[in-house]
Amino acid sequence: MPMTPDARVDLDRFWSTIEASADIGKGRPGGLSRLTLGDDDRDMRDLFCTWCRDAGLRVEVDAAGNIFGQRDGTDNDLPPILIGSHLDTQINGGRFDGIAGVLAGLEVLRCLNDLGHVTRRPVVVVDWTNEEGARFSPPMVASGCFVGKYDIDWVHDLIADDGAGFGDELERIGYKGTRPCKAGEIDAYFELHIEQGPILHAEGRAVGIVTGGYPVRGMRASFQGQTSHTGPTPMDLRRNALAAGARWLTAIDDLGWDFAVHDGKATAARLTAWPNKPGILSESAEAICDVRHPDPVTTRVMAERMRRAVFESAARCGCDAVIEDEWEWGGDIFDHTLIESLRTQAIRMGYNWRDIDSQAGHDAYFLATHCPTAMIFAPCKNGITHNNEESCDPSDFVAGLNILLHAVVARADR
Amino acid sequence: MPMTPDARVDLDRFWSTIEASADIGKGRPGGLSRLTLGDDDRDMRDLFCTWCRDAGLRVEVDAAGNIFGQRDGTDNDLPPILIGSHLDTQINGGRFDGIAGVLAGLEVLRCLNDLGHVTRRPVVVVDWTNEEGARFSPPMVASGCFVGKYDIDWVHDLIADDGAGFGDELERIGYKGTRPCKAGEIDAYFELHIEQGPILHAEGRAVGIVTGGYPVRGMRASFQGQTSHTGPTPMDLRRNALAAGARWLTAIDDLGWDFAVHDGKATAARLTAWPNKPGILSESAEAICDVRHPDPVTTRVMAERMRRAVFESAARCGCDAVIEDEWEWGGDIFDHTLIESLRTQAIRMGYNWRDIDSQAGHDAYFLATHCPTAMIFAPCKNGITHNNEESCDPSDFVAGLNILLHAVVARADR
Repeated sequence: MPMTPDARVDLDRFWSTIEASADIGKGRPGGLSRLTLGDDDRDMRDLFCTWCRDAGLRVEVDAAGNIFGQRDGTDNDLPPILIGSHLDTQINGGRFDGIAGVLAGLEVLRCLNDLGHVTRRPVVVVDWTNEEGARFSPPMVASGCFVGKYDIDWVHDLIADDGAGFGDELERIGYKGTRPCKAGEIDAYFELHIEQGPILHAEGRAVGIVTGGYPVRGMRASFQGQTSHTGPTPMDLRRNALAAGARWLTAIDDLGWDFAVHDGKATAARLTAWPNKPGILSESAEAICDVRHPDPVTTRVMAERMRRAVFESAARCGCDAVIEDEWEWGGDIFDHTLIESLRTQAIRMGYNWRDIDSQAGHDAYFLATHCPTAMIFAPCKNGITHNNEESCDPSDFVAGLNILLHAVVARADR
Repeated sequence: MPMTPDARVDLDRFWSTIEASADIGKGRPGGLSRLTLGDDDRDMRDLFCTWCRDAGLRVEVDAAGNIFGQRDGTDNDLPPILIGSHLDTQINGGRFDGIAGVLAGLEVLRCLNDLGHVTRRPVVVVDWTNEEGARFSPPMVASGCFVGKYDIDWVHDLIADDGAGFGDELERIGYKGTRPCKAGEIDAYFELHIEQGPILHAEGRAVGIVTGGYPVRGMRASFQGQTSHTGPTPMDLRRNALAAGARWLTAIDDLGWDFAVHDGKATAARLTAWPNKPGILSESAEAICDVRHPDPVTTRVMAERMRRAVFESAARCGCDAVIEDEWEWGGDIFDHTLIESLRTQAIRMGYNWRDIDSQAGHDAYFLATHCPTAMIFAPCKNGITHNNEESCDPSDFVAGLNILLHAVVARADR
């Protein structure tokens, strides 16, 4: 049975899944603390798999713990459409970040069941493991592995701050799947996500069509000094790695302010040191920072200053420094045909929409290196996110869900 | 039998105790990692108590785990002389810091046994618990408690970074003594310590007579921000507590350089933050810094700038700040009569000595608030300390030990 243009998702049903999810791994009031591959993540995965099977989907889990729920099409030899996001949260996370995207995919497929509409191509809802990077670094590691950016053995060997291994935890919670973590041909990838910024809410928009992502460049640097006594050691003989790390973080925060007028941002995200104790200068420190700016050239300039600041900070404290790791993502990565199809649906259904850039990282960035990809943003109150006060109303998802439904079906049926 | 002016300690016996101690809680090559109240600290305490009992000393342990080995005098109603230091080390500590002072006290008493000399007043060798503060903060907590600076219940409730409680660990290793941790009347306190600075070694001196301590002022500050996403959150809406803490540490390092020309020092010692993860701005941070300068007025100026920097750093990052704790020690705290008695012995025995200021904190600082106190410094190679490369030869202790012996006996017999 063909889907008619006035078909709409069941908002109450979607919202009930958001509420059920909000009961698993509760954090601070109103929020979630559902770290990847923990017991709460397992419980949420179990519930999600049950929902998928109840909806008649074929559930598969790959070697990185990514969960795929496939609704067959009339021609299953054609590459599928994927709709995905992530069910894990930050340690002080909200109820919508990532979660809304996975449950939106489920709602689209449940809606197709209601309508009795079988698409030409198969449509698959996906939960990507460890998007947040709140327990295992780097973030988005499983979607990265899926598109060939990371090797599965390297992913399994990742160690959390709490000492747990990625592969061991996958096995422990029963989600080390047999399907290889390797993307085949994919027709298109869609991801709905909350904006995580204040723009849509401030402008009273119902939905954002994501045209690209702020170019982001990050690095992890280590500083090497020498322990000695904090008392008698003269300033010019000190090699305090903690002070070197602190100088780098300060330089990065300054860098963000230097470029803030055109919406540049720089983040001093993490600093650890050893021994990090009173009475003794620290021998080693490690820090993670990143920069982002809407203009890719400016992002490159900021990244160059971030890099220079590593060595300037180290030198100022008599320390050595090494850039251990670097990464970048973002830019104009989304597919113009898909973007246009989303805009078309927004206009047809009369939603108050706008084009918007993503400023955060998303699994969609990795998928975009592999297949045509697009994202839809739902508004969230004041842009607060990665915080238990992250807040959305059901109405914030109406436009996004229905645009997703019609864009996916149009793509899957072509 | 009266002690003759040519009496000397047994250097080989002293050195053999240093070497036996260097086998307990080995750290990096040549060093020790004997954190207070751990199993290695217990083993060292057990050995020390055995040595004391073998030397005929009466061993008592107080409620803070301080160990006292008393050699009776002819009039035990008179206030005793104490000789002490500490047997715990930093996590990457050396073999001499603190240890040499306790074992020097033991050697003095063994020497008196050899000589058959009974002093008029009792003489007591002391091991103070947790001088380093490497496991439980603050440092010198048990000598501080002994002189009434800290309450014993507060000390017992201290929690280490590893989660252990001070009182629980005392009980576990069998050193929660029955003697109250409270100083009675004390005639004098002597402490021998390695210099922990380069001066004596550079000048080829055999010994330093400590006339005072660099005034030191330290503080622990906390910064309160808000978690949010590192991507979309504009710079002016960020409340990144980690960045605030890093700014404070940077300001403190700058402060040290500003005063370095007259031997001022400022130390960025410790910084922790939560969640301290990529992808999320940190909600809270805590940091410890201190300043020291030979001139007390300048130290006060530096401390005032350190305090101001807390709130400036917080404000720059939209955070709130609280100074949780402040401390100060040092100044001209040692007893002029005792200092003069040490000088007299150095001159009489022909040692190449000099007056010197202490730049580190010592248990002697707390004892000085309670009774006449003096310190003797032994040279250490290049002033390297709080590092496994801390290094002394037996000859570095000849002058210090013999000055200690004669000064203690002169005081005890008067």
